Amino acid sequence: MSFINQNIKPLNTKRNQKGNLEISGCDIVDLANKYKTPLYVIDEVTLKTMALDYKKAFKRYEKANIIFASKALMTASIAKILANLDFGFDVVSMGEIYTLLYAGVDLSKTSFNGNNKSKEEIEFAIENNIGHFSADNFLELEYINEIAFQKNKIQKIHLRITPGIECHTHDYIKTGQIDSKFGFDLKTIDKAVDLIINKYKNLNLTGLHAHIGSQIFETKVYFDLVEVLVKETKRIKDKFNINLNEINLGGGLGITYTNEDNPPSVFEIADVIIDSIEINTKKYNIEKPSIYIEPGRSLVCSSGFSLYTIGSTKVIEGVRKYVAIDGGMADNPRPSMYQAKYSAEIANKKEENKPETVTVAGKFCESGDILIKDISLNNPKQGDILCVYDTGAYCYSMASNYNRVLKPAMALINNGKSDIIVKRQTLEELTQNDVVLDRLK
Amino acid sequence: MSFINQNIKPLNTKRNQKGNLEISGCDIVDLANKYKTPLYVIDEVTLKTMALDYKKAFKRYEKANIIFASKALMTASIAKILANLDFGFDVVSMGEIYTLLYAGVDLSKTSFNGNNKSKEEIEFAIENNIGHFSADNFLELEYINEIAFQKNKIQKIHLRITPGIECHTHDYIKTGQIDSKFGFDLKTIDKAVDLIINKYKNLNLTGLHAHIGSQIFETKVYFDLVEVLVKETKRIKDKFNINLNEINLGGGLGITYTNEDNPPSVFEIADVIIDSIEINTKKYNIEKPSIYIEPGRSLVCSSGFSLYTIGSTKVIEGVRKYVAIDGGMADNPRPSMYQAKYSAEIANKKEENKPETVTVAGKFCESGDILIKDISLNNPKQGDILCVYDTGAYCYSMASNYNRVLKPAMALINNGKSDIIVKRQTLEELTQNDVVLDRLK
Repeated sequence: MSFINQNIKPLNTKRNQKGNLEISGCDIVDLANKYKTPLYVIDEVTLKTMALDYKKAFKRYEKANIIFASKALMTASIAKILANLDFGFDVVSMGEIYTLLYAGVDLSKTSFNGNNKSKEEIEFAIENNIGHFSADNFLELEYINEIAFQKNKIQKIHLRITPGIECHTHDYIKTGQIDSKFGFDLKTIDKAVDLIINKYKNLNLTGLHAHIGSQIFETKVYFDLVEVLVKETKRIKDKFNINLNEINLGGGLGITYTNEDNPPSVFEIADVIIDSIEINTKKYNIEKPSIYIEPGRSLVCSSGFSLYTIGSTKVIEGVRKYVAIDGGMADNPRPSMYQAKYSAEIANKKEENKPETVTVAGKFCESGDILIKDISLNNPKQGDILCVYDTGAYCYSMASNYNRVLKPAMALINNGKSDIIVKRQTLEELTQNDVVLDRLK
Repeated sequence: MSFINQNIKPLNTKRNQKGNLEISGCDIVDLANKYKTPLYVIDEVTLKTMALDYKKAFKRYEKANIIFASKALMTASIAKILANLDFGFDVVSMGEIYTLLYAGVDLSKTSFNGNNKSKEEIEFAIENNIGHFSADNFLELEYINEIAFQKNKIQKIHLRITPGIECHTHDYIKTGQIDSKFGFDLKTIDKAVDLIINKYKNLNLTGLHAHIGSQIFETKVYFDLVEVLVKETKRIKDKFNINLNEINLGGGLGITYTNEDNPPSVFEIADVIIDSIEINTKKYNIEKPSIYIEPGRSLVCSSGFSLYTIGSTKVIEGVRKYVAIDGGMADNPRPSMYQAKYSAEIANKKEENKPETVTVAGKFCESGDILIKDISLNNPKQGDILCVYDTGAYCYSMASNYNRVLKPAMALINNGKSDIIVKRQTLEELTQNDVVLDRLK
């Protein structure tokens, strides 16, 4: 049995009687016609199912808080869907906080992360009653304390630490000293705790936070991470006589983009984490802490897909066939930036047994703008609708206006219904901040 | 003697009496205070000098047209500055065309490039009297002809070809068959010419176009490129009895980002190109064609720089010192995307002989968000203003809202004066296309 983060496609993806791709009861060709392409689409059913899977997976541990890593996909409606399911949020900027407020989400379950929060951002967060900060460095401790003092508040914080574990997909490394821009290393954390206890009276330190990587396919690394955090909690308890009763394990669970990927399910990860807590709290003799988990990609990616229309094709005899789409590196920079691989299929025709290996090129004026190299598609032609899977995370959120191309719209689908949740950018918006100086006219 | 594209810094960069960095008569610390950071800045003096250098360099060839590759940096005021100097534009989207119109620039000297222009874009371009298309593929030829016919126009076009030369910095390769998404290869071009002559009566084919790469440090490749285009022009003349009297050599001239870079000057490139035309038009016995040159990076990059404020620092004993700035991969994705290297210095203090090797980290929630690894800076501290050079090209144009961070403003400076030419994005603009569905409220 495979779970959502292990599936390439959203739930309820099939071919309908017309031979068109149908997802969550929506004919994908109708969707492309109605809203035009390029189009981001999120299937609400898959998104909510995955969100509830996260809750189920951690249910046997009473004190688990799941907070969404907003950087993966922050729009007002997505935020509201998750908030309605009682999710909290991991945010990293004033813009993300502003979007939550715009969506009508209160910030009590929100954690503010990031390695260089500005004073203005910290002030904005505290004014709007942010749940807690994951404090990253000494300057930030000073700022939070100062602003909390001015506002007569005691601000809850976690300390982000670099745990000496770093993980990418299958491999992870453990070192005494990780070269990361984030957090306190294990040599400087005591100084931070000391400052909080003895100087920063408007800070309430309740726990430790760590984040070890992304697109992780390995479970044991989470077991080890829990041990590092529990051990450190115990050491700090003994040295400073302070009970930290929360640990935040960050995110990082991988998903299946192509058949080459083989991530564990959220249930496997949850079991490893909970087991490790049981074992290590006994081993180090501390009370079981509340835990925070910050899924981003694994929560939203598989519910998202992108629709494009195929335009020109170029055949280079004996070398390659390019089919070009009406989007590319500006709406999905991941292939250019991370050599990311995607799965895709033609939405508007029956499987005809005419597979053809082609390279899907974007429309951007850059030779590196290749969305998918060497993929088998069903006889792709001009006018066909291409559905690219797993674009729910880090596509809209990283989108640019490169080549002055407009950002696509985003539709939300749910059992045959569809709505726009992000409107397509307009040409007027593209130039709304452009000033032509009088002396140049 | 070095020329602008060979300099790291804009013209007239010095330390003033306060010890502050001063560029084009503007105290950089004042500039940062006035407009806040992060801030893109363009020095109009450097930009115009480089533009005029391009004109001077090609002056001895009467029929040279310099058109700016807009994808490097398209804002309305930048477009107007270059249009006022009689530059044309190489555009690749409706958004770039719209911006030119918004700036009050007529399109007569504009060339429309790109591998997958939509019908809508082609229609918009023709309606607005675009100078010519650089037609990339068969579908586009059909579209342009159809729309020109509807509008009762004869549309001038060039044909983009893949010349079998590809160049990156110092190296270039010549092959019979280049694996590129762009243009007609030398085996399919005859079919295109034949269609234009015999079928597409609303197209006026006047020349060939090729573009061989970017950040090129090699001159001989331009010599060879001219030969390929002249030879092809002659072959087409003989076979089809048609005189193509224009060739477009694209862009690609490199610039100096760091002391490791050693590009030729625009004057060297111009001499090689003009010499090659003289030699090869004689060799192949054709008339000297008009030429088009499409500089992007080399025209605007050195006039631009970015200002940031240093925030938190993190010292990992024996490993590295990070200094974090208030911008990063969203306003300059080139280090993440291309491993690009930049030069920078602290703007607000005298050279003190306290150089320290640090790594400049961005504020984005991603470990890859490192702007400059291992750079020697003058005793960098919280609150210092960091000036990063050569950000005129492919920074603003590729900027995203990753982490929901706002796009920076852009200031234009000129002999002690400064103006905002792109306003800083606002939080309201960030959510202007966000829809919260009623049923979610």
